[in-house]
Amino acid sequence: MGAFDSSSRADTVDDPIPLSEQLQRGNLLAANCPSREVLKHVTSRWGVLVLIALEGGTRRFSQLRRTIGGVSERMLAQTLQWLERDGLVNRVAYETVPPHVEYSLTPLGREAAEKVRVLADWIETSLPRIARSRTERDVAR
Amino acid sequence: MGAFDSSSRADTVDDPIPLSEQLQRGNLLAANCPSREVLKHVTSRWGVLVLIALEGGTRRFSQLRRTIGGVSERMLAQTLQWLERDGLVNRVAYETVPPHVEYSLTPLGREAAEKVRVLADWIETSLPRIARSRTERDVAR
Repeated sequence: MGAFDSSSRADTVDDPIPLSEQLQRGNLLAANCPSREVLKHVTSRWGVLVLIALEGGTRRFSQLRRTIGGVSERMLAQTLQWLERDGLVNRVAYETVPPHVEYSLTPLGREAAEKVRVLADWIETSLPRIARSRTERDVAR
Repeated sequence: MGAFDSSSRADTVDDPIPLSEQLQRGNLLAANCPSREVLKHVTSRWGVLVLIALEGGTRRFSQLRRTIGGVSERMLAQTLQWLERDGLVNRVAYETVPPHVEYSLTPLGREAAEKVRVLADWIETSLPRIARSRTERDVAR
C-alpha cells in the first residue's frame, strides 16, 4: 500500500492541504489500501446510481427510491450511509410533520459523480456493441 | 428500460452500426435493463482492477494474480469470464508445455478501462480528503 497516513488532523476543510499530504495517494492494486473501501462504496451496485441520481440536485429518500429502479429501502439507506461517511453525500433531517430527510452531493461527491457518470454513460451507449459481442461469442461456441 | 433490442444480428463487428441501433441505449436507472449486468461486471471489485491491470498490455493469468493484491484464483477467473463474454477482454490459450493463457483488452475493453481508470485515479488521489472527511465526521459524533 502507499504511504498513506490517516492521522487525524484538527484543521478545517478549508485549510490548504500540506504538500506532504498531497503527495500521498492510495494504491488500489494493494490489498490492504483504504482506497479499496472507497472504491467499493462508489462502484457498488447502488452507489453508482445514487451518485448519478443526486447529480440532478437535492432529493428526499423517497424520491431516490422511486428514481432508482429495484433498490430496497435497506440497501438505499446503507448506500447513503457509506457515501455520507466518505464525505460524498450531505444528509439534512428536517423536523417537520411528518419529518423528512434530504440528500445532496458535497463538492467531493460532485467530483465522484462526474467520473461515475462518464463510465455509466459509456455503458449505456455501448450496450448495443456489448450485446452484439455476446451474441457472436455465444453463436461461435 | 430503454427500447434496447438484443436481436441477434449476423453481420461482423466491422459492419457499420445502423442508425436505428445507434439510437438505442441502455438505462441504468431501470431495474430490468441489461446495462445493469454490464455495470456489475465493469465495476465489480475485481473487474475495475483487471481492466486497469490490462491497460498495461497483455498479461498471463498468473501475472494478473500477482499484480492485483488479494484476488483469489476463483474470483479472477470468474471476472475474466464476465469481461470476455462482454467483449471487453480477449483470451488466447497457447498449447505450449506447460500450456498458458494470455489476456488482453479488446478495443471496447480499452474504452471501458479508460473510464474506469479515471474514476480509480480520482479515488486514489482523493483518498486524503475522504479520510479527513471521515475523521471529522467521526469526531463530530
